[in-house]
Amino acid sequence: MENVERLRGLMSDIGLDWIALSGADSVCFATGHEVPIETGQSPFAGGPTIALIGRDASVGIACSNVEGVQVPAAQYEPYLGFDCAVTDYGANYYSAVQKLIKKLGVSGVIGFERVTFPAMLSDLFVHGLRPVDGELARLRAVKTAAELEKLRHCARVAAIGQEAARAHSAPGRAELEVFGKIRYAMEKEADTRCPVAGEYLTGIERTLVFGLQPSRRLMGAGDPVLCDLAPRVAGYWGDSCGSFVIGGQPDKSYAAMFRAAKDTLEFAISEIRPGLRANEFDAMLRQHMKSQGYSYPHHSGHGIGTSVHEFPRLVPDEDATLEENMVLMIEPGSYLAGIGGIRCEFMLRLSATGSEIMAPFTMSH
Amino acid sequence: MENVERLRGLMSDIGLDWIALSGADSVCFATGHEVPIETGQSPFAGGPTIALIGRDASVGIACSNVEGVQVPAAQYEPYLGFDCAVTDYGANYYSAVQKLIKKLGVSGVIGFERVTFPAMLSDLFVHGLRPVDGELARLRAVKTAAELEKLRHCARVAAIGQEAARAHSAPGRAELEVFGKIRYAMEKEADTRCPVAGEYLTGIERTLVFGLQPSRRLMGAGDPVLCDLAPRVAGYWGDSCGSFVIGGQPDKSYAAMFRAAKDTLEFAISEIRPGLRANEFDAMLRQHMKSQGYSYPHHSGHGIGTSVHEFPRLVPDEDATLEENMVLMIEPGSYLAGIGGIRCEFMLRLSATGSEIMAPFTMSH
Repeated sequence: MENVERLRGLMSDIGLDWIALSGADSVCFATGHEVPIETGQSPFAGGPTIALIGRDASVGIACSNVEGVQVPAAQYEPYLGFDCAVTDYGANYYSAVQKLIKKLGVSGVIGFERVTFPAMLSDLFVHGLRPVDGELARLRAVKTAAELEKLRHCARVAAIGQEAARAHSAPGRAELEVFGKIRYAMEKEADTRCPVAGEYLTGIERTLVFGLQPSRRLMGAGDPVLCDLAPRVAGYWGDSCGSFVIGGQPDKSYAAMFRAAKDTLEFAISEIRPGLRANEFDAMLRQHMKSQGYSYPHHSGHGIGTSVHEFPRLVPDEDATLEENMVLMIEPGSYLAGIGGIRCEFMLRLSATGSEIMAPFTMSH
Repeated sequence: MENVERLRGLMSDIGLDWIALSGADSVCFATGHEVPIETGQSPFAGGPTIALIGRDASVGIACSNVEGVQVPAAQYEPYLGFDCAVTDYGANYYSAVQKLIKKLGVSGVIGFERVTFPAMLSDLFVHGLRPVDGELARLRAVKTAAELEKLRHCARVAAIGQEAARAHSAPGRAELEVFGKIRYAMEKEADTRCPVAGEYLTGIERTLVFGLQPSRRLMGAGDPVLCDLAPRVAGYWGDSCGSFVIGGQPDKSYAAMFRAAKDTLEFAISEIRPGLRANEFDAMLRQHMKSQGYSYPHHSGHGIGTSVHEFPRLVPDEDATLEENMVLMIEPGSYLAGIGGIRCEFMLRLSATGSEIMAPFTMSH
């Protein structure tokens, strides 16, 4: 558990004795234990799965029996969730964390995650609780070799989804039908079901709206398609976006807008390198897009790992410095009434001097 | 918001002035606001969406701008989650709940949900916090006419999935491929993506194991299939389980075991009625199954609503009395090495004198 070592370094740096992790993403980052998320918090869970990491290298996990022991090297304290009897999940959960605290000897200054820590556990941590959300986010931004390998697989799964989107988008098909085929292509590669964030939308109006979900809408020849696919595979996320026209014959206005987005993505790939500040790089991309007559209202990109969207964000007020082995999504786009939405997004690993595309896929209209 | 009225009744009965709801299921139950769950807690959320219900009939919701205003009658306090700037989601969330408390004038004795309440908000509720998980679960068990209509749609979506499973399970196909087709059939009916819990497993060994996920495994003629489908549609859940053999020609041992499970389900449908106790009914079903030489290690069934699995559970130590307009899953089954797993599950509404199957589907091997 290489990331436990990194967490120990952080604890030493900022004066913590323990870290209590409650976010599904952080638990996976630290221990490799994967909390199922696809149907929300389990009805058999008494609270979020907790990982306790000690400066002495102890690793403990309290989770329901439904999740089970996944990481042999960790000390598990499973509690009864699913049982053929009336069960007080909350009480079982509380008691498991309490036992784990005792077994591991948790004491001193304890870091915790502000946005996911459950009120129920507050009185178990009688020592100094200190939020570490910010420090944790920064630590997670640079990936280890093992994490890069996992993320490369996620990127490949997303790329397979993108190729499937091109293969299956055809006049007369429903968005949900094609999305199902895309999803199957990704899940086949992953060999299991995957949570999938993102969008698969068709038609001028729908590709202009953020956050819509695929529907029964039947696509037609000439429809623009916006396909943003972010699958979670074994606890890590991939992300991607392709944009194209069904039938492959876009009009001039779509083609020009697509060229601007793709060109800005290529510019980003050639310019990104360690040492740049996030906002400086963000400004370069916006300027490049603007010089071609287009703009986008969202971030230029973001980090990715055990969360689909993590530090650093490429936005005008983020002054973090980009570093080698950060994995960043770059996603310039444009959205214009009468034309539709276009976004071109690759997953990049920052190398010592530049970047590599983690899993390229067809990027053409 | 009929359920707000019911919550006011509960508050009056047990002496609460407000209820603070933090579970995605309870928020939807009370207000109709649907929290997206399919990719876990949003990376743009500072904590779980909160609904505040007052004995004075006030309804307030604090959620991120990504979720947006869904229920016009509620007072919303949205906070910045997704933004083209560095954003402290946690601080925004805290501040939104704080504002909402002030606007609504929340004070007095406040009920909260023990298993989902975030530590971050604890200091905002300076008044007497009292857990209401148990009372809330009991209140939710009996469904209103509006809820029954929603659940009927969920049941229909699940039934469509079951028929799709029969239509598409064929030798040489991968579990994930067929699961994709099943999912599409359900999502087409729902006209959007649906979180789906459950199992779609093939082969003797895999149908014996609880909690597996569909894989690349290719199914063969004669393989048993266990298909448990629980889709969430517009915030409510459906559930179902069918069991059959690919090719439809089971051997004698499978056929006998199937008859026992189906017969026990039919017995349950004919015997269930308001006034029975859950454990009494559970024992009747186990006895019926046992008299045919089989047994199952899990519950005989469970309630369903805005959570896929809710009170009352049909287990040996649950003495709750069954009531009209409870919606219950009934799921006798058997799991034997050399034969495989079989489970037959319908979704029933309790009527004044018996029950109705909410959405029947083919139940044969």
